[in-house]
Amino acid sequence: MPGSDVAGPRPRVVIVGAGFSGLSVAKRLAKAPVDITLIDRENHHPFQPLLYQVATAGLSPADIAWPIRSLVRDQRNTRVLLGAVTGIDSVRKRVVMADRNMACDVLVLATGATHGYFGNDIWAAHAPGPKTIDDATEIRRRLLLAFERAEMSSDARERERLLTIVIVGGVPTGVEMAGAVVELARKALATDFRTIDPQQTHVMLVEAGPRLLASFPEPLSRHAEQALRRVGVDVRLQQAVTHCSATGVTLGDESVAAGTVIWAAGLAASPAAYWLAVAGDHVGRVVVGPDLRPPGMDDVFVIGDTAFALDVAGKPLPGIAPVAKQQGAYVAEAIQARLAGKPAPPPFRYRDRGLLATVGRKTAVIAFGRRQLTGWFAWWVWGIAHSYFLISLRNRLIVMTQWLWSYFSFERGARLITGMVTRPESLE
Amino acid sequence: MPGSDVAGPRPRVVIVGAGFSGLSVAKRLAKAPVDITLIDRENHHPFQPLLYQVATAGLSPADIAWPIRSLVRDQRNTRVLLGAVTGIDSVRKRVVMADRNMACDVLVLATGATHGYFGNDIWAAHAPGPKTIDDATEIRRRLLLAFERAEMSSDARERERLLTIVIVGGVPTGVEMAGAVVELARKALATDFRTIDPQQTHVMLVEAGPRLLASFPEPLSRHAEQALRRVGVDVRLQQAVTHCSATGVTLGDESVAAGTVIWAAGLAASPAAYWLAVAGDHVGRVVVGPDLRPPGMDDVFVIGDTAFALDVAGKPLPGIAPVAKQQGAYVAEAIQARLAGKPAPPPFRYRDRGLLATVGRKTAVIAFGRRQLTGWFAWWVWGIAHSYFLISLRNRLIVMTQWLWSYFSFERGARLITGMVTRPESLE
Repeated sequence: MPGSDVAGPRPRVVIVGAGFSGLSVAKRLAKAPVDITLIDRENHHPFQPLLYQVATAGLSPADIAWPIRSLVRDQRNTRVLLGAVTGIDSVRKRVVMADRNMACDVLVLATGATHGYFGNDIWAAHAPGPKTIDDATEIRRRLLLAFERAEMSSDARERERLLTIVIVGGVPTGVEMAGAVVELARKALATDFRTIDPQQTHVMLVEAGPRLLASFPEPLSRHAEQALRRVGVDVRLQQAVTHCSATGVTLGDESVAAGTVIWAAGLAASPAAYWLAVAGDHVGRVVVGPDLRPPGMDDVFVIGDTAFALDVAGKPLPGIAPVAKQQGAYVAEAIQARLAGKPAPPPFRYRDRGLLATVGRKTAVIAFGRRQLTGWFAWWVWGIAHSYFLISLRNRLIVMTQWLWSYFSFERGARLITGMVTRPESLE
Repeated sequence: MPGSDVAGPRPRVVIVGAGFSGLSVAKRLAKAPVDITLIDRENHHPFQPLLYQVATAGLSPADIAWPIRSLVRDQRNTRVLLGAVTGIDSVRKRVVMADRNMACDVLVLATGATHGYFGNDIWAAHAPGPKTIDDATEIRRRLLLAFERAEMSSDARERERLLTIVIVGGVPTGVEMAGAVVELARKALATDFRTIDPQQTHVMLVEAGPRLLASFPEPLSRHAEQALRRVGVDVRLQQAVTHCSATGVTLGDESVAAGTVIWAAGLAASPAAYWLAVAGDHVGRVVVGPDLRPPGMDDVFVIGDTAFALDVAGKPLPGIAPVAKQQGAYVAEAIQARLAGKPAPPPFRYRDRGLLATVGRKTAVIAFGRRQLTGWFAWWVWGIAHSYFLISLRNRLIVMTQWLWSYFSFERGARLITGMVTRPESLE
């Protein structure tokens, strides 16, 4: 019924967030006798692991993002709402949005997280992180504009600044971004300019900890570091960003003038804990039990990056796509068990799907259980695995065409600076 | 030399605008002993005839746009500047930009035109026209958001308004847009919504003149009109938009509530005539002679949509890509003749390359000399011709893959609403 929020005869499941975890719940409940409402602030589901490719002009946004509606179009028990949740009324079991309240029987919060600026949120303006499609195109715009400005500058120091790119955070996103930026500068842009030489681009990767890829086995960290150093990335370990401005960053005593700063460090959860009025961990994540529910809340599941959960060995679960997807599947199972009057499933147990990160176009690092894989073959495994996970066939075909093309041609096709025109009228 | 604008020993050719005509001049002078500076406000050259496909979510921006630098990267006599020209100093022969003046020996103005609002420029905010990549993604955003809002509205009249799309201008862009919007609503979105039925979308095409495609032979106009009516487009002839607001348009006595208004009418030239302090025609185009120069100006060529030129029969040349490209080639020839001390080439003569417009996914109209072609076969000719003209092989492959895919699947892959996030920091 148009705009109706009246209770139906079937249990109402509201899922907030259509990332990996939220979408996974919805898909797994496709045939369940429930009414699902899937709410997201964006109309599309981005494949986050490849956002760095959009940010570095290798892929177009639409290659790695799908309209949420089209992903659930065939499940008639699901409707999609574009909009922002502003709060939860736990007492009356309602989800609060700007223009409506929505009653629900089961609530799934999968609202994700963004990078964290360690209390310096003002840095976000100077150092965007690739979390959404708009973030990624903004980073692309800044990177490409920096080269354009360097080309036009008559000041050697300013050119040097503009050609310095600082990436903060030695996590997979930071490592992958560093490799891709080098490739963009050294290959795709190599002969495009007359005044500057993109080969002179200074790519710095800053990590506060003692090694890159801290969640990977140590040999893989060393491999990634060496591979990045080999292509010229200035890897800085045990150095923390102490200040960030429009013209660069400060690392303790060292001031680094930079044209582009890209942030891939820290973590700041969505306000889900605040909405639920429950305790959050130090980055604001909702602490959930092995049933993925906050203690004492029967009808609320919190999953994905906005949840803090321990695995069976007592170690925190990492914020990666396989964890999110498996949590989604678990929640769908729990909801169906309850509908069927069956006992709840046993505690959530993460089945390790491995850790992957690519380093430029030559190598990747893969940790799977005790096995470790590096080099050329790992790169192809990474490429094939990511192509496989790209949901739709169309995108898989196009992404693979683009990759093969740019692998052999060193071209990067999506080098567009867009969004420079002021929007004539706000439609918000 | 870094940032140097000092005169070199070779004649300096400055080309303002890297659309079809400006780019054509630069490419044809690739081997000429001149120093070329190609200036554009964007970093990319869009393939304008397919912008409507971006606006209707069929193609991604990068599928039909190329970094200008990469298009001329192999010609070492050419440098590219990203920036806006603000004036021409005709006396001292300098091009004026915000941050520099640039001396030149030969000036080519190819700055294009936009749609015209007949003195009501305020309508532009309510009715964007697809002239740039940013325009096209803005239209895409508005179209897709209108469906999202309709889905969420509980007011039947508001839903009807949001599902009404008015396209103004029976030119090829308007006709093609109408066909593509119908396809988007009736096919790609058909089963994506739960409250609204996209089949109910009301697509109106408004043309002030007595027929669509006025520049085409009359039978083709009739064919296009019938084809559009057959798929449900509400074609309004001899009706003019008398007012335009955020909620719709007025056609004389009739008020049409609309969620999206797309403008494809009128013409407003760039300020080239103002810069040169010469007479413009009624839409501001520089009136040029058969040598494509404004009377009395030896070293200035004006071409493409910003020029008003007559063909040998005394008829105004149309503002289409083949005219622009041939004018570019002519100017390159004229410059080379002068360098070689040869006589100027004979007056510019347009070689008719035909007129093409596609109407939805079933038919197209083609006029080539006295021959006329319509229907299924014309559609394929149109598709192949456009794929052929897409400059790079990469894009040709991807566009053809996307087209074939969406032709057989009715999918439209690029349905992203982007740019909703306020940019944290202006970089302009």
